[in-house]
Amino acid sequence: MKPFVLHVSALRVDENKTAAEIIAMEKAALELWGKGDPSGFLELSDPDVVYFDPFLEQRIDGLDALTRYYETIRGKVHIDRFELLNPNVQFCGDAAVLTFNYVSFSGEKTSRWNCTEAYKRTKKGWWIIQTHWSITQLPKKIQ
Amino acid sequence: MKPFVLHVSALRVDENKTAAEIIAMEKAALELWGKGDPSGFLELSDPDVVYFDPFLEQRIDGLDALTRYYETIRGKVHIDRFELLNPNVQFCGDAAVLTFNYVSFSGEKTSRWNCTEAYKRTKKGWWIIQTHWSITQLPKKIQ
Repeated sequence: MKPFVLHVSALRVDENKTAAEIIAMEKAALELWGKGDPSGFLELSDPDVVYFDPFLEQRIDGLDALTRYYETIRGKVHIDRFELLNPNVQFCGDAAVLTFNYVSFSGEKTSRWNCTEAYKRTKKGWWIIQTHWSITQLPKKIQ
Repeated sequence: MKPFVLHVSALRVDENKTAAEIIAMEKAALELWGKGDPSGFLELSDPDVVYFDPFLEQRIDGLDALTRYYETIRGKVHIDRFELLNPNVQFCGDAAVLTFNYVSFSGEKTSRWNCTEAYKRTKKGWWIIQTHWSITQLPKKIQ
């Protein structure tokens, strides 16, 4: 049994390392985002990326369309700090699904979000193929 | 070149067929959902499924927790009809990311949603590992 156990264990170590790398990439893109710069997300996104957020009437398809959308926001977002809560990465071969809750603080304003990022692995690294941002319901007692 | 071209073509035919199957599975689960029955989604979901919707303070992790949540809704949803708009399936090995806009009609009420479903393939078929529902912004002119 030992070789099998070792193999599974090695796989888990590798997945944990990759999960940490994906979360670090996401945080780096969010740091830029909080300074009004969408370039981090655009550079991480695959040409065939699809995208949802709560300000859109329908899904955005493709990096060109996402770039046009993000460029309208460039310079308009200012976040003092953020927290990426309880990130989770699910692996399925060369795909990884990152989900987390996110909270940002800007002056007196706090914003809470749900996020799903689907990544795919290529020879050149990991790329976002799907992004879904939505607003988190606040607990009723503090609403 | 011919064998390669044929191979790529066969792959695309296979992916198109699988995409249609995944969309059909989703529609079948939505049909049940619209009759107040969450069983379709629960039966499609992996034990490690993660889940977001706009009524939650944070992500739900795992089928047991999702089952407890859905059972509180059983019998309470009544949808006359729905449309699954512009479904898209992205494949990455044994993972498939289904995204669509969804609109439901119940009497005078119309609800518009964004949805991402991440599926993984196992020997027993396709399973949902991530669900993200959020409300679609209506165009300002008809709000």
